[in-house]
Amino acid sequence: MKKFEEKTIDSNPIFKGKVISLKVDDVTLPNGNQSKREIVNHPGAVAIIAITKDGKMVLVEQYRKPLERSIIEIPAGKLEPGEEPAVTARRELEEETGYGCNELNYLQTFATSPGFADEVIHLFVAKDLYKIEEKAELDEDEFVELLEVTVEEAEQMVANEQIYDAKTAFAVLWMKMNK
Amino acid sequence: MKKFEEKTIDSNPIFKGKVISLKVDDVTLPNGNQSKREIVNHPGAVAIIAITKDGKMVLVEQYRKPLERSIIEIPAGKLEPGEEPAVTARRELEEETGYGCNELNYLQTFATSPGFADEVIHLFVAKDLYKIEEKAELDEDEFVELLEVTVEEAEQMVANEQIYDAKTAFAVLWMKMNK
Repeated sequence: MKKFEEKTIDSNPIFKGKVISLKVDDVTLPNGNQSKREIVNHPGAVAIIAITKDGKMVLVEQYRKPLERSIIEIPAGKLEPGEEPAVTARRELEEETGYGCNELNYLQTFATSPGFADEVIHLFVAKDLYKIEEKAELDEDEFVELLEVTVEEAEQMVANEQIYDAKTAFAVLWMKMNK
Repeated sequence: MKKFEEKTIDSNPIFKGKVISLKVDDVTLPNGNQSKREIVNHPGAVAIIAITKDGKMVLVEQYRKPLERSIIEIPAGKLEPGEEPAVTARRELEEETGYGCNELNYLQTFATSPGFADEVIHLFVAKDLYKIEEKAELDEDEFVELLEVTVEEAEQMVANEQIYDAKTAFAVLWMKMNK
């Protein structure tokens, strides 16, 4: 998968933050010309399609500062360094929803913004959920509200743009096909 | 949609590039504490589920420098300043695939990485395609290869991670439901 490869001539680090870092690479294009690529590095993330015993989707509403609005999403969170995605998935599900799961299946991985970022999301399906007695703590800067909705309600949320992100739009179609 | 709003105290521009810019905002959290948010601004994009007369999906393979590999995606491209998404969609479809379309329908909009970026993708469905006699030029730093595949072939490409981005994963499910 190296078709049209762009070889790095020089890499210029611009910013290193808590979550992301940014660099600008000088590259050689397939035709021999040169160009610049602005690249955001991200640790990667997991997202979980969590299904309750009565077939509802578990969703969380949270404020997304880049969009300056709150949106409704499937539970998700960043990988810690060296962490197995399945471990992250169980941790994030517990922290954001208070649910544990007896069944966790890996579904697929996809890049979210391959034009400018290396973020990938590892997507899981969690079933046979149970309420954790002592709910794990959210990160100190994280505030979420829990919802449990039918697939039809989720589709309505897509239509009125309360659901407004790619992973959750994917999850709604997946639920519709697999219910 | 302002639940758990994070008010901006201060905004610090870090980088302004050709495609993206980066800032770090100091915010007040819902509990009154302060935090920082690293935010990438992007002009927004369109993507097109383009369906040939024989029901195949039109896809493009291109090298994605952030991932250091080539992946196969539905046609997509950035909005020019002030441009209507439907205009961008027709332009990008033509530039990347050499197809025009007699029918273009808006499907939905979603954010790709709402945790750190404001990029949204406006998704369209293009039908009744016809070959443009004089194919429009790609951007000078853009190299793509055209593919036309059945939904079953696209599903196989998801399974072997040739299709490896969120908008295209969504498109494959959408095709499967709507064929």
